[in-house]
Amino acid sequence: MIGWEAVDMGDGMAGASRLDARLRAVRAELVRLGLDAFVVTHLPHLFYLANVRASAGMLVVTPADAQLLVDFRYRTVAAELVAAGAVPSGLRRVDVDGSYEETLRRVASDAGWERIGVEADHLSVRRWQWLEGALRAAIAATVGLVERLRMRKDDHEIAVLRAAGERLGPVTARVLDRVGVGCTERELAAQIEAALRDAGFERPAFEAIVAGGPNSALPHAQPTGRRLVAGDLVVLDFGGMHHGYCVDLSRTVCVGRAGAEARRLHGAVHAAQAAALAAIRPGIHASDVDAAARDVLAGHGLAEAFGHSTGHGLGIEVHEAPRVGRRRVEGEAAAADAEDPLLAPGMVFTVEPGVYLPGVGGVRIEDDVLVTEDGHELLTRVPRELRVC
Amino acid sequence: MIGWEAVDMGDGMAGASRLDARLRAVRAELVRLGLDAFVVTHLPHLFYLANVRASAGMLVVTPADAQLLVDFRYRTVAAELVAAGAVPSGLRRVDVDGSYEETLRRVASDAGWERIGVEADHLSVRRWQWLEGALRAAIAATVGLVERLRMRKDDHEIAVLRAAGERLGPVTARVLDRVGVGCTERELAAQIEAALRDAGFERPAFEAIVAGGPNSALPHAQPTGRRLVAGDLVVLDFGGMHHGYCVDLSRTVCVGRAGAEARRLHGAVHAAQAAALAAIRPGIHASDVDAAARDVLAGHGLAEAFGHSTGHGLGIEVHEAPRVGRRRVEGEAAAADAEDPLLAPGMVFTVEPGVYLPGVGGVRIEDDVLVTEDGHELLTRVPRELRVC
Repeated sequence: MIGWEAVDMGDGMAGASRLDARLRAVRAELVRLGLDAFVVTHLPHLFYLANVRASAGMLVVTPADAQLLVDFRYRTVAAELVAAGAVPSGLRRVDVDGSYEETLRRVASDAGWERIGVEADHLSVRRWQWLEGALRAAIAATVGLVERLRMRKDDHEIAVLRAAGERLGPVTARVLDRVGVGCTERELAAQIEAALRDAGFERPAFEAIVAGGPNSALPHAQPTGRRLVAGDLVVLDFGGMHHGYCVDLSRTVCVGRAGAEARRLHGAVHAAQAAALAAIRPGIHASDVDAAARDVLAGHGLAEAFGHSTGHGLGIEVHEAPRVGRRRVEGEAAAADAEDPLLAPGMVFTVEPGVYLPGVGGVRIEDDVLVTEDGHELLTRVPRELRVC
Repeated sequence: MIGWEAVDMGDGMAGASRLDARLRAVRAELVRLGLDAFVVTHLPHLFYLANVRASAGMLVVTPADAQLLVDFRYRTVAAELVAAGAVPSGLRRVDVDGSYEETLRRVASDAGWERIGVEADHLSVRRWQWLEGALRAAIAATVGLVERLRMRKDDHEIAVLRAAGERLGPVTARVLDRVGVGCTERELAAQIEAALRDAGFERPAFEAIVAGGPNSALPHAQPTGRRLVAGDLVVLDFGGMHHGYCVDLSRTVCVGRAGAEARRLHGAVHAAQAAALAAIRPGIHASDVDAAARDVLAGHGLAEAFGHSTGHGLGIEVHEAPRVGRRRVEGEAAAADAEDPLLAPGMVFTVEPGVYLPGVGGVRIEDDVLVTEDGHELLTRVPRELRVC
């Protein structure tokens, strides 16, 4: 495996005018920050801004133009994108023959940039130190510049995410039909992946989680060879990628029969998720959605059993901004608005409260939502009642 | 999906004494560099040094002890590892309640460390800047400290990689039997993944590549819906993960019939790979292996068609040190030995020359090797002659 990656050359890509609009938003930030150039090193941002899906690459945006640095492996792919008009207007390709850093040094030196922004969350200390020594420019570490823009999805992204969410419905129905006494977690995980591909997803968005019985309280991404037995709670958590965008869903079912404790846990999580969904509207903080779920679980005496956040943003990455969790107060939060933003139309995130009782079992229920002008739209529409398989 | 990850609690894990030996090697480096503590943030290194496979975590190694910082999601898993004796001797668990950075600040302050090493390739500029502001200690950026140790596999790792390589043989045979006129790339990729799981691999090591006809010259990780036609060259590149270690293999076949140009390209790559394999022995540079393959392809007039490196290290990561490529001369190379090391027994890497002629087709042949005392051992044993499917 030599690091080739895919470019979706079919439909499903953002058009040039859409990319131009995204770059305009980036350029407005450059002007605000007084940067001559901005070096994009986070690969999902290359896809967002230039339709490039690669395992290496750099995009350098200036107030006037943009240059895509690519090595041998992506030259043909980049040329095809340019020929198809599927890149931002005026994008230039720069071939990397040695290292990306050396090429960037040459480009920056030729242009005479004095102040260059980098992505502080997506540049290693090693590359940073090398650039500081090699560039004749001040280097500014920016935080969350593109991530904040990506939080509010545009029309293209919403259309893709809606289509992806719809595809998860039949996948879920097919998968839940297969759950039963004697199945192994690993078999079910393989069936989930097959169902995702059959439904037309490009690939699973992540390794499917199937965790039954005691494992449901100790969720392992790695499904085991354990066979399901009657009375098991089974957490199934999976998702697919469609045109480069991720959707993500969890359901928890009972095998054979549902005991009283299983019903109690499922009912509490179901109610917590309903409260979180009902809270969603523009203008509240992401942490308010988390609090709505957390309060319900606390009311059921399950506060300690819910140790993770209520949700996370979804899009090009399966985990992206906004985080839907408790408000954090540490100094780590450099940008308060990205840490706990006000919800706004176009944001897409998961709502997935859960409870985990070691030795007993766990329950998680997860759906994906789009924030609308006056509330939310469910992107995943699958029954949430406790199902006995 | 909330970021749970797997811990393999079965056999197949390195024992405590093996982990102790690895930590001793790290500690020798700390002493040499005059560090009071070393903060490991690269997740594959948490697995290498402490058997922890997680999506978040920090391991802090001092000359005297080691502390594992874990958040809510991994507490139970970490406790199970400790209970199973599958962690280094004396490892202490530190629970993270706020952020990892805050917890590290507290631990470092309590210990009074004055000089703390971090992993320059695996720490973001943002985290670095926060630590520089928050810690009352000098922070030293180390490069390749654990990577260099990982280059030479120990007995446990060699046993796991041998077993993994053996498993790829039947997978390849089954997959090649399915290739034929009318198959789509996507169908074959799904069959590869199913065959890997059926053979007992934990998961595919990466998204399988199936690239037929013109796509073979323009390899896309994303297999398409294109149906194979007679005369197509088809590159198949796939691998599996076994007990946390990756193996990786490519074969190129012809569908229906093999034309003269396909035979010529395949013959040249086959000869290039044979030359590279024959060159492998302790004491030569990794770049010498690359040169052996490159010289053969140049002799066939295909120098320009071979744009990538001959190989890459394999282990916990599907791409790790050593890189088996051209010797690079840029200033980027901070550590010449890690950039182009002398081969030594215990190193494991791929040998995968390839040629790519746009509009015509491409060929890649890839196997995995272990460097031995006097040459190499093939970990993957699958016929390399051109097969017509």
